[in-house]
Amino acid sequence: MQPNVDVLTLAVGDLDASRRFYIDGLKWVPTLDVPGEVIFIQIGHGLLLSLYDAEKFAVEADLEPSAVAPVSLGHNVDSIEEVEAVMEQAEAAGATIIAPARRMSWGGCSGYFADPDGFRWEIVFNPGLSVDQDGTVRIEVIDQADTADPAE
Amino acid sequence: MQPNVDVLTLAVGDLDASRRFYIDGLKWVPTLDVPGEVIFIQIGHGLLLSLYDAEKFAVEADLEPSAVAPVSLGHNVDSIEEVEAVMEQAEAAGATIIAPARRMSWGGCSGYFADPDGFRWEIVFNPGLSVDQDGTVRIEVIDQADTADPAE
Repeated sequence: MQPNVDVLTLAVGDLDASRRFYIDGLKWVPTLDVPGEVIFIQIGHGLLLSLYDAEKFAVEADLEPSAVAPVSLGHNVDSIEEVEAVMEQAEAAGATIIAPARRMSWGGCSGYFADPDGFRWEIVFNPGLSVDQDGTVRIEVIDQADTADPAE
Repeated sequence: MQPNVDVLTLAVGDLDASRRFYIDGLKWVPTLDVPGEVIFIQIGHGLLLSLYDAEKFAVEADLEPSAVAPVSLGHNVDSIEEVEAVMEQAEAAGATIIAPARRMSWGGCSGYFADPDGFRWEIVFNPGLSVDQDGTVRIEVIDQADTADPAE
């Protein structure tokens, strides 16, 4: 597993309040804004901040709100096989597997493991995400009908 | 305030356990390892992961362990005046000031604010930190005697 964080996810209690602060207040420009669900904002070279509805996040990352930080560190790879390989490597290093590599509703695949403190890492293959030479991240929403054979 | 995260800090309960997982297990190379206190690891272009002793972190970020995520997002600027300016801008956007800009034991200055969910942002001027053209981050420990007039 390469030492790379590509997405920093914060689970937020009120996405509209987050939008008022980060978009309206700080004037940051969203890469993708899906009302009621998630806002992505570029916060570095190839790096996204994901403000993600806390209830959806808690289910996805198998997270008790009071037990573990409502945050995850996303690591992008290029195929579901790579997701599986990284999960195996992390487990061998001492990680706890939270969710094995699986197909996700947004058209890609992901798996979760926890580090020694319970911090969630999400290993992701997202066929709709690409990074330009200058580090700009692009996300296109994948048509669910295409997920079996992404048309890219 | 520019949309940039430069350091992702995770408060860890046992820094030796974190070292066994990230350094020994995953074979990641530390940029700086200060036993008993903090390990920095490069996790992207100009981006560091900071594994930071949880007790020290809780005091620094004024954080009740069970109340808010033991994590902070670091945003680097070039002077204490810029720290102060960003803190003012964040407050105007709706942030709660946790700690005003102040001189830190490691030779720089920082201030903390909280976003609508209480997530801590640390606005930092670190005279010992530099980023190469290729995104590699370097940290040198500043001699405390030099902090009044950094010798860079």
